[in-house]
Amino acid sequence: MSFSVTILGSNSAVPTHERFPTAQVLNVHERFFLIDCGEGTQIRLKQFGINLSRINRIFISHLHGDHVFGLFGLMSTFTLLGRKNELHIHAHSDFGASLEHYKKYFGTGLCYDIVFHPFRTTKTEVIYDDKHLAVELIPLRHSVPVAGFIFREKAKLLNVKKETILKYSLSIKDIRKIKEGSDFVTGTGEVIPNSHFTLPPLKPRSYAFCTDTLMFSKLKSLLKEIDLLYFESTFCETDRKLAKITGHTTAAQAARLAHEVNAGRLIMGHFSTRYKNTDVFEKEAREIFPESHAVKDGEKFVIPQVRMELPV
Amino acid sequence: MSFSVTILGSNSAVPTHERFPTAQVLNVHERFFLIDCGEGTQIRLKQFGINLSRINRIFISHLHGDHVFGLFGLMSTFTLLGRKNELHIHAHSDFGASLEHYKKYFGTGLCYDIVFHPFRTTKTEVIYDDKHLAVELIPLRHSVPVAGFIFREKAKLLNVKKETILKYSLSIKDIRKIKEGSDFVTGTGEVIPNSHFTLPPLKPRSYAFCTDTLMFSKLKSLLKEIDLLYFESTFCETDRKLAKITGHTTAAQAARLAHEVNAGRLIMGHFSTRYKNTDVFEKEAREIFPESHAVKDGEKFVIPQVRMELPV
Repeated sequence: MSFSVTILGSNSAVPTHERFPTAQVLNVHERFFLIDCGEGTQIRLKQFGINLSRINRIFISHLHGDHVFGLFGLMSTFTLLGRKNELHIHAHSDFGASLEHYKKYFGTGLCYDIVFHPFRTTKTEVIYDDKHLAVELIPLRHSVPVAGFIFREKAKLLNVKKETILKYSLSIKDIRKIKEGSDFVTGTGEVIPNSHFTLPPLKPRSYAFCTDTLMFSKLKSLLKEIDLLYFESTFCETDRKLAKITGHTTAAQAARLAHEVNAGRLIMGHFSTRYKNTDVFEKEAREIFPESHAVKDGEKFVIPQVRMELPV
Repeated sequence: MSFSVTILGSNSAVPTHERFPTAQVLNVHERFFLIDCGEGTQIRLKQFGINLSRINRIFISHLHGDHVFGLFGLMSTFTLLGRKNELHIHAHSDFGASLEHYKKYFGTGLCYDIVFHPFRTTKTEVIYDDKHLAVELIPLRHSVPVAGFIFREKAKLLNVKKETILKYSLSIKDIRKIKEGSDFVTGTGEVIPNSHFTLPPLKPRSYAFCTDTLMFSKLKSLLKEIDLLYFESTFCETDRKLAKITGHTTAAQAARLAHEVNAGRLIMGHFSTRYKNTDVFEKEAREIFPESHAVKDGEKFVIPQVRMELPV
């Protein structure tokens, strides 16, 4: 079952010839979620072989152009492709006005429903929840309201060992209960522990997307044990003052956070155009948190599925 | 003195992995005019090595997203680059609402003046005029009001032959008048014709940009003797019905027009994504007008400077 993120744009506001502004696509069990939608997102999706029509839900972190200006073109393309499925957009409530403007001036022929899910960024809350995934909004700190998003895979049904099922001649109902985690009680009242029938559970995976924010201490409690942590690193430590003034983070700050929350891996992006290449970010971050990586447009990060280690 | 156009985007509304939506940049004597501004225009400008800050004036043919959605990101980038120069935008008057929306929701920190030159597309008129260039709007026919633009280089001062000036001991004032085309009258009243002092005049060059339009007969009189004619060829003749329904033109129609107006060269673009490659457009057009070319993103077309042939 997939759980991976593909980087569509890795630069900060001013794009370069090879780095587009922010956009990512998260694949959770072959369902595709777009996170931010900077200019050129639809072009990147095509360049990286991702079928546009697979995207049904979009999360926009904040209303700066480099995170949202690709959405209008994408919406128009959906019309030209004859889209029928609803398109769900989660964004700050102020984005309602832009959607209305789009519909009025550029939405001729719109052939699908846009379902807008406005949010505020005043508190941590779950803004999306389905069978496989929950999305948690966490307030970040920038010049405008910004949301971080934590994507948490739900626990799956347990995998049963075929031979034990056969041994006890279990009914379909029994098997279902065991998959859900129950122990089994035999006809004689004997309790067979669930672990006798099942493989250790698969560890639910998590991805956190945090961009355009100052570093602040509360993040340590919000981002504990995240498997893959995307954290903006617009600047290096040499430009720390500039980071603070502009409401951004340095690679070292991101790496310290990743270390403190025991992240599985740190991926950094939203690089300022002032840096000629991104090696400086990796060098700075890896001294603090070795599992740090400066992303490139087109890179895909897979979070592998692993089984929990159960106490013996 | 330069007179060239660089293609920034050559596809119709749905971009492909290698063809961006419509945008071009016209270089007239090292002054850069942007024509249309589809999504990703600023990225293309960077990829093709064109300095963004050289762009001071933008002409938008019509208000479909694939011709204008790149403008918002470009305006934001100008702010981030600390632009001081005015930015002049010529577009249909309805675009005023989008500019106001941009300024209200995305224009924080805007550090330069946007001068909006609204137009209507009801009649042919000159919408821009300076020392070197005049821009003529011609109404086209599509599902929304569309303008074509003819860029006409102004006649330059004549080049004088040094030896004749020395021979007649001309004053600076005399030379100026001769450069402007006057004959010279000597102290004894003898009239020396201008052509004795000057090289044949440079032929003023012209570029016409016509996109998103049905073909119609009036274009024959509007586009006479254009040096370089860009005409949309969204479809081939096999899809002529579709062209008509959607308000577009076929390659053969564009080529016939180029032939009838005695264009110097035809360049075609705005290709529908249904065609795998653009050879079909060239093949179709060249049978009618051999100097036809299907453009690619990044291509530059130079109109050479030639001297007029004067009657002997």
